[in-house]
Amino acid sequence: MRALVFLCLLMPALAVQAQELSNWRDSASRSAIVEFVEAVSREDSPDFVPAAERIAVFDNDGTLWAEQPAYFQLFFALDRVRAMSAEHPDWRTRQPFKAAIEGDLEAVAATGLEGVLQLVTASHSGMSSEQFSEQAAAWLSQARHPQSGRLYTQMVYQPMLELLGYLRASGFTVFIVSGGGAEFVRAFSEPVYGIPRNQVVGSTIEMKYDDSAEQPFVERLPAIAFVNDKAGKPVGIQRHIGRRPIAAFGNSDGDFEMLAWTTAGAGRRLGVLLHHTDAEREWAYDRDSHIGKLSRGLDEGAARGWVIVDMKKDWKAVFPE
Amino acid sequence: MRALVFLCLLMPALAVQAQELSNWRDSASRSAIVEFVEAVSREDSPDFVPAAERIAVFDNDGTLWAEQPAYFQLFFALDRVRAMSAEHPDWRTRQPFKAAIEGDLEAVAATGLEGVLQLVTASHSGMSSEQFSEQAAAWLSQARHPQSGRLYTQMVYQPMLELLGYLRASGFTVFIVSGGGAEFVRAFSEPVYGIPRNQVVGSTIEMKYDDSAEQPFVERLPAIAFVNDKAGKPVGIQRHIGRRPIAAFGNSDGDFEMLAWTTAGAGRRLGVLLHHTDAEREWAYDRDSHIGKLSRGLDEGAARGWVIVDMKKDWKAVFPE
Repeated sequence: MRALVFLCLLMPALAVQAQELSNWRDSASRSAIVEFVEAVSREDSPDFVPAAERIAVFDNDGTLWAEQPAYFQLFFALDRVRAMSAEHPDWRTRQPFKAAIEGDLEAVAATGLEGVLQLVTASHSGMSSEQFSEQAAAWLSQARHPQSGRLYTQMVYQPMLELLGYLRASGFTVFIVSGGGAEFVRAFSEPVYGIPRNQVVGSTIEMKYDDSAEQPFVERLPAIAFVNDKAGKPVGIQRHIGRRPIAAFGNSDGDFEMLAWTTAGAGRRLGVLLHHTDAEREWAYDRDSHIGKLSRGLDEGAARGWVIVDMKKDWKAVFPE
Repeated sequence: MRALVFLCLLMPALAVQAQELSNWRDSASRSAIVEFVEAVSREDSPDFVPAAERIAVFDNDGTLWAEQPAYFQLFFALDRVRAMSAEHPDWRTRQPFKAAIEGDLEAVAATGLEGVLQLVTASHSGMSSEQFSEQAAAWLSQARHPQSGRLYTQMVYQPMLELLGYLRASGFTVFIVSGGGAEFVRAFSEPVYGIPRNQVVGSTIEMKYDDSAEQPFVERLPAIAFVNDKAGKPVGIQRHIGRRPIAAFGNSDGDFEMLAWTTAGAGRRLGVLLHHTDAEREWAYDRDSHIGKLSRGLDEGAARGWVIVDMKKDWKAVFPE
């Protein structure tokens, strides 16, 4: 009840916000997004979509926050491995742990996906889900990006925060659909994006209910259960949200299937890809990047009617002040 | 925006509804529920819980709607098998399909869990997620309970509908956490309970994204992916909701772990079990029932501080008029 009163007090503020995508330049991208939102949310529109079906999904890495020079969750895993290494003396001579402890990103990369998964499962398991959330939140509150020196949660995109607010003010329910770990993203989704934990879909590791001790808990196990990337994203969405979104936002070929499935549905649909074109304010990368590779999306996106946002041209600011 | 305006117009109505659990008799059960809700939702209360953490979870079969003489989803599976049997002539002589086609519930039961799972996977797979939703919704709109002759969606418990409304009006986010199939429950959760599809956690079958045809779709595969029952419920909740609920409602030992985990958390907690005691208006069953068995909950519930609702004594009406 109180939450509702609070929401109602906020209404005039939200109504203003809906008009304001203030860090979006007046561009074809901005117009396409606004036209879509108005078409599906105005009751007198021929393309009107009932609120329950007004679902928008957002990739996280490279779409809501930055992802260079490596996924931020990998930095978390490396810091956790370092913190845990005192209890694992063998790690100091064994890859990929040796590289992680020495903070040698290139050597970590040389161990390939297999090595990275080993680091992630070792550092993300063996505790309760609540303990993991606390570890992730504690790390996010003080760890800093190696190049910008900012907190990682300050490496979010200001225009995308405005877009999230605009969609919510237009009656959308907004979900994150990330290749990253669901519980890692949940550690900051509420305070940073205003997205409730239960509206985060992500990769998961196996879990087990343990009631053998005095206090029952859900334990995180060292095995990947589901990879929410590429063809996994539509499956993760169907499993979690239970309906096809009408709008999808991504930045890499890992989001291709999510956009293809979303925009193939009946009625008006929106697919948006961020193109990282701003080497000065952020990073410029696409076809040849080791992370967030965008190639098929550039080749086929326009023909599929997707909006390709040019981050350098379309955005006034990239990060919050 | 419009949804918010609509909510705000509804506010006086909701405020009244919060006072009204009109089909709950003035009982110890009702008092315990109301005291808990007020303690966690009043900002001046020492037990106040912020809205984001005010999560309540409800089992479905036997807690929100009836489950006798068999889970309603099984009746759906049997009707689907019958409808599909023309394309599967071999089913007419092969168990468990023969029993299903003949509508012989006892013979189906004799094939055990293995047989039932065969019927469910065969009838719930081989189509897109959207086609399945349509089939389930179409069935629910006309199939009738074998004893009451009512639509299955009229076999919901009126006092529980009131409780859902009361919790929502008190700022709770309400989830269904069912041993039944998530997509089956989603086919009626919004219109019947006012619970959005994405707030349904349930058992799942494997799914696969298929973009080999002209229109991409998510295909349902004939294999069980996750059984959201017993020790699976806390795992399903953590995976989907991402935090431990503060209130849990169930009716059988399949809900025991969900209630134990929920009520073991810090701060004020609520665990509620419905005891089916009303052979006249509904059914009376507990320790020896083939469905919805309630035994450990009766033995340990009171000592754990759980509320045991006596449906015969505590409820004025069972089903909606």
